[in-house]
Amino acid sequence: MWEKNVRRVIPYTPGEQPGRRDITKLNTNENPYPPAPGVEKTLREFEAGLLRLYPDPEAAQLTEAIAERYDVSPEQVFVGVGSDDVLAMAFLTFFHGKEPILFPDVTYSFYDVWASLFGIPYRCPPLDTQFRIRPEDYLAPNGGIVFPNPNAPTGVMLPVDQVERIVAGNPGSVVIVDEAYVDFGGESALPLVERYDNLLVVQTFSKSRSLAGLRIGFAIGSRKLIRYLNDVKFSFNSYTMNSLTIACGKTCMEDEGYFQKTVARIVATRERMKKELAALGFSFPDSVANFLFIRHENVPAPELFGALKENGIYVRYFAKPRIDEYLRVTVGTDEQADRLLDFFKKYLNDRRA
Amino acid sequence: MWEKNVRRVIPYTPGEQPGRRDITKLNTNENPYPPAPGVEKTLREFEAGLLRLYPDPEAAQLTEAIAERYDVSPEQVFVGVGSDDVLAMAFLTFFHGKEPILFPDVTYSFYDVWASLFGIPYRCPPLDTQFRIRPEDYLAPNGGIVFPNPNAPTGVMLPVDQVERIVAGNPGSVVIVDEAYVDFGGESALPLVERYDNLLVVQTFSKSRSLAGLRIGFAIGSRKLIRYLNDVKFSFNSYTMNSLTIACGKTCMEDEGYFQKTVARIVATRERMKKELAALGFSFPDSVANFLFIRHENVPAPELFGALKENGIYVRYFAKPRIDEYLRVTVGTDEQADRLLDFFKKYLNDRRA
Repeated sequence: MWEKNVRRVIPYTPGEQPGRRDITKLNTNENPYPPAPGVEKTLREFEAGLLRLYPDPEAAQLTEAIAERYDVSPEQVFVGVGSDDVLAMAFLTFFHGKEPILFPDVTYSFYDVWASLFGIPYRCPPLDTQFRIRPEDYLAPNGGIVFPNPNAPTGVMLPVDQVERIVAGNPGSVVIVDEAYVDFGGESALPLVERYDNLLVVQTFSKSRSLAGLRIGFAIGSRKLIRYLNDVKFSFNSYTMNSLTIACGKTCMEDEGYFQKTVARIVATRERMKKELAALGFSFPDSVANFLFIRHENVPAPELFGALKENGIYVRYFAKPRIDEYLRVTVGTDEQADRLLDFFKKYLNDRRA
Repeated sequence: MWEKNVRRVIPYTPGEQPGRRDITKLNTNENPYPPAPGVEKTLREFEAGLLRLYPDPEAAQLTEAIAERYDVSPEQVFVGVGSDDVLAMAFLTFFHGKEPILFPDVTYSFYDVWASLFGIPYRCPPLDTQFRIRPEDYLAPNGGIVFPNPNAPTGVMLPVDQVERIVAGNPGSVVIVDEAYVDFGGESALPLVERYDNLLVVQTFSKSRSLAGLRIGFAIGSRKLIRYLNDVKFSFNSYTMNSLTIACGKTCMEDEGYFQKTVARIVATRERMKKELAALGFSFPDSVANFLFIRHENVPAPELFGALKENGIYVRYFAKPRIDEYLRVTVGTDEQADRLLDFFKKYLNDRRA
């Protein structure tokens, strides 16, 4: 049978995307604010007839806008269909050795899926009891290193001097720092790119830039790294970024004011949520991302997860060792935060009664 | 050094995408007509605020529109970022055996690139002297089979009863029929899908549906094949199809009248070109695609290629064994055909003088 030749995998499970609009959707870390107003304008004005032509395979307009914003050369920028596409390509390109790659035991749950898909051996050094990465764990022999910073689903940040320790200590490996959430108060490792040609920093338009629906991720690194990455990308699919995405992505990246304003709002809501959640008996690592990783002192996470869902509030629960007592809650608007907090107040109160 | 762990590849080279608009662009088999008018309407009306949300990972609206059009179940449809993405995923999923996969020696030049990228052994049975696939070559032991039908860059069609011979003769392999060009007069193998669970038919929106710029390809096969393909896709990138692409793709697929009308125009232009090119001393296989694969009795292909380019007419030349005496010329509008034919008349005349 033909099935003997099939690659068998256990895929990653993304968070639910319910079609209904009446949901308080705090389960996939989307931005609650619309994308920069220029995006709508770009859609309205885009010449539809041009769609008959292939897009620019280099996606130069988009790559250049990113390079300009981050003050690097366009040859240091790689773009993909969301940061998942960028990370998948980076795994395929850079983790082709025999030694196991390293990533934390508690982390983005796609890493082990990519490793399995591509047959990459891996090892997972445990975070410490406060969910912190221990840099010394990453100074052992390895075939590559990847971690999110801030980490997912905890929101905990590894200070950049510690990131540098890992990058500097591994000249024989590519180190991928996955900064999907860095814009909400983290500190980026981007300044290190100039000094370390083995560092790849990955970011996304899906969170801080409100464009999850358009699928844009990017990586910044040394010219040499980006060249290798592009070689693999052009061996996979010449035209990943479509013409509309290139145009809208450029517009979005160029509106720095809107970006700063919406990010500041989300940070303010997050800090307020921290105070109120603590007062309600929740504890959590000190997240610098657009989500909080919370557990209640008395109520098990699965119970809260179910009760929230019944009441139209979607959050994320991972039934995995070490984190199965937590819920990951996206920071949305103040109104969404109030809906969540009001629910918790009522639920905890009723439960006590 | 970290470079020891890098996957080294020689990427596929796509046709040039010049930014200039004054080019007669007959080099990448794009459709000369704009996409269905509903696509522009969809762009104008799309609610930009929705782009903050992740797209539907199943791309159900698009998948269902395709299923409806081809009279199959949505569970028999897989969508990707152009047919290259679909084919890359299919190679990764189905060609995971130890025996070499088979594809023709003269064919789409991405097949050997994917095979090399994923470490898949392959063997290339030669086409006959008239560029025809010999089905008996594909009845040898193999780890999978893939060929375009009509073939690229020749435009030659293998009759469906011969396709069936290959599919029926290989119950132990997945057979991928890449029908990127089938809508211009070929006969699709889709009716065979119901009887053979090892047949995957791949098509695209990039040619007959004028949406190369939007990146949509799809595959139709048995539920089992599509499930395996989706497992690998969801192990690579959960959200490949963006929200705009899903919406525009659906609109496009639903306008059957426009599709039929524009395809008929291209076929008419192609048949006229055949007559006039023959009269000018060109010979070519009898293409049923939206391109012609031509050689002149007296003038070498590289010379014509250079002269055309100098005069703002881009076609494709492949410096490869067996086909280095040919040019691949996309069938565009009648005006574009006239520009090409007029150039040839003048050039051949001047050359004789």
